[in-house]
Amino acid sequence: MDIDALRAGQPRAVARAISGVERGGASARAIIAAIFRFTGRAHLIGITGAPGTGKSTLVNEIAKQYRRRGKRVGIVAVDPTSPFSGGAILGDRLRMQDLSGDPGVFIRSMATRGNLGGLASTTADAVKILDAAGFEIVLIETVGAGQNEVDIAKNAHTTIVVQAPGLGDDIQAIKAGILEIADLLIVNKADHDEVSATVAALEMNLNLKPMQENDWRPPVLKTIALKGEGVADAVDWIGKHRAYLEDNHLLAQRERARVRAELEMVVQRELVTRLLGGVNGSKVEMLVEKIAARELDVYTAAERLVQEKL
Amino acid sequence: MDIDALRAGQPRAVARAISGVERGGASARAIIAAIFRFTGRAHLIGITGAPGTGKSTLVNEIAKQYRRRGKRVGIVAVDPTSPFSGGAILGDRLRMQDLSGDPGVFIRSMATRGNLGGLASTTADAVKILDAAGFEIVLIETVGAGQNEVDIAKNAHTTIVVQAPGLGDDIQAIKAGILEIADLLIVNKADHDEVSATVAALEMNLNLKPMQENDWRPPVLKTIALKGEGVADAVDWIGKHRAYLEDNHLLAQRERARVRAELEMVVQRELVTRLLGGVNGSKVEMLVEKIAARELDVYTAAERLVQEKL
Repeated sequence: MDIDALRAGQPRAVARAISGVERGGASARAIIAAIFRFTGRAHLIGITGAPGTGKSTLVNEIAKQYRRRGKRVGIVAVDPTSPFSGGAILGDRLRMQDLSGDPGVFIRSMATRGNLGGLASTTADAVKILDAAGFEIVLIETVGAGQNEVDIAKNAHTTIVVQAPGLGDDIQAIKAGILEIADLLIVNKADHDEVSATVAALEMNLNLKPMQENDWRPPVLKTIALKGEGVADAVDWIGKHRAYLEDNHLLAQRERARVRAELEMVVQRELVTRLLGGVNGSKVEMLVEKIAARELDVYTAAERLVQEKL
Repeated sequence: MDIDALRAGQPRAVARAISGVERGGASARAIIAAIFRFTGRAHLIGITGAPGTGKSTLVNEIAKQYRRRGKRVGIVAVDPTSPFSGGAILGDRLRMQDLSGDPGVFIRSMATRGNLGGLASTTADAVKILDAAGFEIVLIETVGAGQNEVDIAKNAHTTIVVQAPGLGDDIQAIKAGILEIADLLIVNKADHDEVSATVAALEMNLNLKPMQENDWRPPVLKTIALKGEGVADAVDWIGKHRAYLEDNHLLAQRERARVRAELEMVVQRELVTRLLGGVNGSKVEMLVEKIAARELDVYTAAERLVQEKL
């Protein structure tokens, strides 16, 4: 790997390094070992929201806003909705048309790589590469608000949750979870009818949340990403949140929590890979047959595999 | 645990058993060991869709339809959108109003229980309990189409993906993934304007998918769940899919794949729980400090923990 080219932010070197961590295993380990000491400078911003909220458009507009302010921007778009397909590539191309030709922007879409915490881990590694490559702002875009997204949000210093007006009967269910992870709440498509109701509902829920003195209260912002409206204000608020974290010595604390979660994730993946890798395949199949025939329950079968290794 | 009461489908016994598997560990193991031999009879139907598609209403209508056909129905509603809160309970109450007083229906909402594959595993256990309790139909409802949902879909014999017309710019991204897991595609809210466009887009995408002779082609169905329209047809199609699986000897194959995935998941969780549990907490904190200070990379730190245990 050409470390100098990577640190200079050369797109080809960055792309190669990300492909390297996507391969996982020794390849990922070698790349991260080479670059980790150059990380820790970027402001990591997670942006999550359900399909239909216009979050991708918003991410592009936030990137443009940062470009106007002279910042280099990396975007990692995580798409767990295409777990089996290479659909992420199309997304890349469509977005590239919008931001293409600007060497100050690097965009990469990532799809899932299996079950073993692969996506969250690979995303964390891709973010490190962009950080080491000198992108001062790294936007991590995820769909939805499931466990994957929460895991990925843990990688961010500032987490933005995007809503759209009138997404219907599940909105109540969403709010419970998102209020816990959101540093900024953005109601996009603010030219739609039900925007006031959505903003009011979010504000009401925020008011219900127990707050200590000096806690950060997430602002509820309105944007019309398609027209770029409200985006400068949103970027100002990201800056305010960063300042809040610094003033209250919370940046180091978030970083430690992030590192702890990542360490646990990697340990988990490594253990499972090695232990399952060392287990006799025909033994696993034999146990599968027994479970399928209801001769054995899954916990007892798992215990047999675990005992064999410990 | 009162096995007879559980097998008779007594709500209190079922509720207690599910609470038992939610506690995890020895409690879950004991319950599953006691009931697994009574499982394997229910038809497991996964229903997934983004927020705003009206999927919860559709699930209720499908349950009612099955009730009219004399089937007992269990519903497990998985809500990964409220990872930190007990929001699922409110959902239970709201839904109970609709289906309450019917001993032939049992509804349980589940929220996430942490990171270690907890949700998918607990959901699989709750499904087993409903199966053993004699519910012939088990509906597993999940939000979104992330990795969590894909994991949960693996627990189903028949997977339904719910769409709604005009959910916007992310619909393209969704389709790539859902076509891989969907056995039935349902466009709900079919009284809305853009329904024909959504159906046409789904059909077009299905036509692009390479099909072998005897492959199942997912039907694209329209429903208006709020009025119960199209639901009987959808339930007929679930039956057709079940017959297809049986006629082609695919039910046993799906069951084996399901069991294999579950075994891997449980082994993973058990290994991580035991190994991380045995690791010195201050050692982990020391490594966290070193990673945060960029003195060590996460893979090298993980390696040290893993080596210590193997």
